[in-house]
Amino acid sequence: MNEASPRRRRGGGRSGNIRRSGAAIDQVDWHIPQISDKPTEPLTEEGVETVHNAAMRILEEIGIDFLHEGARQRLKEAGADVTDGEERVRMDRDMVLELVAKAPAEFTLTPRNPGRQVTVGGNHQLYVNVSSPPSCSDLDRGRRPGDRQSFQELIKLSQYFNCIHMVGGYPVEPVDIHPSIRHLDCIHDKLLLTDKVIHTYSLGVERVEDTMEMIRIGGGLTHEEFEATPRMYTNINSTSPLKHDWPMLDGAMRLAERGQMVTVTPFTLSGAMAPVTLAGAIAQQTAEALAALALLQHVKPGCPVVMGSFTSNVDMKSGAPAFGTPEYMRATQMSGQMARRYNLPLRSSNACAANAPDSQAAWESAFSLWACVSSRTNIVYHSAGWLEGGLCASYEKFVMDCETLQQMARYMQPVSVTEDDLAVDAIAEVDAMPEAQRHFLGAQHTMERYETAFYKPFLSNWDNYQSWENAGAQQTPERANKIWKQILAEFEAPAMDPAIAEELSAFVERRKAEGGAPTDF
Amino acid sequence: MNEASPRRRRGGGRSGNIRRSGAAIDQVDWHIPQISDKPTEPLTEEGVETVHNAAMRILEEIGIDFLHEGARQRLKEAGADVTDGEERVRMDRDMVLELVAKAPAEFTLTPRNPGRQVTVGGNHQLYVNVSSPPSCSDLDRGRRPGDRQSFQELIKLSQYFNCIHMVGGYPVEPVDIHPSIRHLDCIHDKLLLTDKVIHTYSLGVERVEDTMEMIRIGGGLTHEEFEATPRMYTNINSTSPLKHDWPMLDGAMRLAERGQMVTVTPFTLSGAMAPVTLAGAIAQQTAEALAALALLQHVKPGCPVVMGSFTSNVDMKSGAPAFGTPEYMRATQMSGQMARRYNLPLRSSNACAANAPDSQAAWESAFSLWACVSSRTNIVYHSAGWLEGGLCASYEKFVMDCETLQQMARYMQPVSVTEDDLAVDAIAEVDAMPEAQRHFLGAQHTMERYETAFYKPFLSNWDNYQSWENAGAQQTPERANKIWKQILAEFEAPAMDPAIAEELSAFVERRKAEGGAPTDF
Repeated sequence: MNEASPRRRRGGGRSGNIRRSGAAIDQVDWHIPQISDKPTEPLTEEGVETVHNAAMRILEEIGIDFLHEGARQRLKEAGADVTDGEERVRMDRDMVLELVAKAPAEFTLTPRNPGRQVTVGGNHQLYVNVSSPPSCSDLDRGRRPGDRQSFQELIKLSQYFNCIHMVGGYPVEPVDIHPSIRHLDCIHDKLLLTDKVIHTYSLGVERVEDTMEMIRIGGGLTHEEFEATPRMYTNINSTSPLKHDWPMLDGAMRLAERGQMVTVTPFTLSGAMAPVTLAGAIAQQTAEALAALALLQHVKPGCPVVMGSFTSNVDMKSGAPAFGTPEYMRATQMSGQMARRYNLPLRSSNACAANAPDSQAAWESAFSLWACVSSRTNIVYHSAGWLEGGLCASYEKFVMDCETLQQMARYMQPVSVTEDDLAVDAIAEVDAMPEAQRHFLGAQHTMERYETAFYKPFLSNWDNYQSWENAGAQQTPERANKIWKQILAEFEAPAMDPAIAEELSAFVERRKAEGGAPTDF
Repeated sequence: MNEASPRRRRGGGRSGNIRRSGAAIDQVDWHIPQISDKPTEPLTEEGVETVHNAAMRILEEIGIDFLHEGARQRLKEAGADVTDGEERVRMDRDMVLELVAKAPAEFTLTPRNPGRQVTVGGNHQLYVNVSSPPSCSDLDRGRRPGDRQSFQELIKLSQYFNCIHMVGGYPVEPVDIHPSIRHLDCIHDKLLLTDKVIHTYSLGVERVEDTMEMIRIGGGLTHEEFEATPRMYTNINSTSPLKHDWPMLDGAMRLAERGQMVTVTPFTLSGAMAPVTLAGAIAQQTAEALAALALLQHVKPGCPVVMGSFTSNVDMKSGAPAFGTPEYMRATQMSGQMARRYNLPLRSSNACAANAPDSQAAWESAFSLWACVSSRTNIVYHSAGWLEGGLCASYEKFVMDCETLQQMARYMQPVSVTEDDLAVDAIAEVDAMPEAQRHFLGAQHTMERYETAFYKPFLSNWDNYQSWENAGAQQTPERANKIWKQILAEFEAPAMDPAIAEELSAFVERRKAEGGAPTDF
């Protein structure tokens, strides 16, 4: 074991550094986009209060099931209406609002490389890769159940792209690793392959505690340092309608107690687990989210939390979820209004229902992404790679999505209107040229700016048809396929102090020897 | 020749009626979407004034070339600085603003079927099919130069889809018709195949006059009735930088004189025909548009006009135009701010640069369309079918675009938050059910609303992967291909009074015998 103190080892000696990724593509630099536009608000101010009142009535009159005795005890001591032996908890609005008001509107998350610190809240928009599909697909190997190799490859893509700011859950479920030790191998892989903020699933005591410990070790931190500031996160979903399950609540409370971030995302698909009306679905989403957020603020006042939105509609013919729909856009924007009502950061998703990385996938994702931008979403889950309503992670879609994420980040840069930008002198100069040269391509004003004036795509093809056809008439997924293969071929893992790497391995080995986590819940 | 008076014949006896289209797809009903959201505004109020001042300086200090002596005479009499024998015209801001203030902020366009009347301006958003590509393509016949059959087919699609509100220029150039008589056959085809508002190219006296006459005959109108209200439109482009050509000015003035709508759209691609800075490109676009709009308001005060925006960026490697880019979105939104500054309706486009109806085409078009919605564009040219930066009309893309146009129209419907929408009682009712039935799929509240609660797609596939694969794993263009073929197979032309049809044919025959239009300009 290394003798260096945790403080000296912090960040593996690379604090604040972001290594330039390989040259596979000319991508944008690491930065956190900030939304300068006013959000789009489908509800009037009164409309927001109306939805708020409905959410309060749900909490006061109907109540929420908390399938966790410890959680119910904490809520009871906070003043909620809890009957011993019953799961249903009712809480009045004063209690809920007072607790939720303790949550910070903005905070940071600091991973093992402090240069990858991100700010959650305000105008910041963070992108997280796809999480949790059971399957993955690419043009070469087709669609298949997830395995560890695919898991690692998708983590490498998440590390490579600077437009991915945080790493989510498993980008595909590696079913070739036994569930009892899967979290150990996966978090180990993540800590070795990425230096960005990572996530833990709230799926049982051992998984949550092991992950927190591994992130602490990976950051070279003492327990006090780990808890001093948020360094990781979890996401919990309610089992809508009106229920919070044991593993989710347990994990959320464990993270909250140690000052780590928790997102609460109700699974309120309109027409299935929530009312068929958007107003009703958002009222229910708000109630379910606030119920758990109030709990967490009682457990640890001021702990970093995020309100999650996953409300979309279902196909009324089949009950299947739909994404990127008009209803999804409006629900996400309404969620933004509700989150701002409570001064909470918002999480939503870049989702689609398409079965292939084709045009439907692209427009559904583009509409979802627009919903995220126009709602002023702070954390966009499933930003890259999501297909089939979340049942498949597509390598080609991952690359396509990163192209659109980069465009959104560029879009957010404010437009400048200085005297130089207005270019009246440049227009006069071009106007004075002989007719054949009367264009701006060669103007001084252009020459001084053309390198950075416009967003430069790495995947979009802007050739004319003849050139495109002569080069093989490659459609977008084929071009994306070449890119991810080159990225993986050139991938270099971020540096890690050998002593930390050794400590991590030892921890994983020990916990495996102990049997990992039980798999019977 | 029919003896009936034009008045009796108006509308071919079907005034105000919109025949239900064939059952190829379950599409939305004919309606004009209205944008309820506040527009997205990248410029501050001061920023708008700064761009305005730059545009005024361009008009006052640099000036615009008007390659039309009649236009220059009219401008001179309006107070502009015009030197005999020189094309350059300078005008001061007072003159420009005074003239432009005469333009109506809102007006209607009434085609031969008054039931297809549309309102231009305000919150209304109108969709126009693709116009003017030299080539077209579909999955069966591949990419080919335009011909009359393809022209007719694309007009039929434009008539069929209720989300297409106006018909643009030629959806593909039918090069198998001689240019001298092409306008006669094309306008004849259009008047027979669609009852929506149609367009004339400003490409010479004969084409413009013939089209106006044919639209008058097609509507069963006297000359006075034709001029009493706007019934058709043209679009003119400046030859940027800073030039308005003869045919465009001539056509625009002819339409203005008869009270028909003119859109003025500068061709200000940033980095090529306009400054590489968006602020400069929009200042130049504004100056070029206002110069021609001031002329038209002097020619016919109060005539219906539209400010056009086509500002996008070019690929700085090749000079090729790019569309649906971050710069395109911002330029379109800035154009919306400038149009509102002058109280003018705005035209922009649903454009893309992709060479195939694939994912790139879809995200570029989705971003363009979002630019149109967020800028509060009133008329969206090239809404359906555009590919390759406008060089190709794709049948499959046409169908794909109509799916997204329908979604945008649905998105614009306000969100309702009545007590019934909030559904607190429905949530309590579902909550009281036994656990297995604790969902909203079968709830009374859902049953009463499920038919209309959500947008129903006709092209998007929401099946699960297995069902989709078992049904042939069809990607979006393949599904779109089946749809347009069914639409064309079932197409029924809108009714036309036989007397009007006869009069139209006779006019076309006579004008063909006279040689049509000269082809030497």
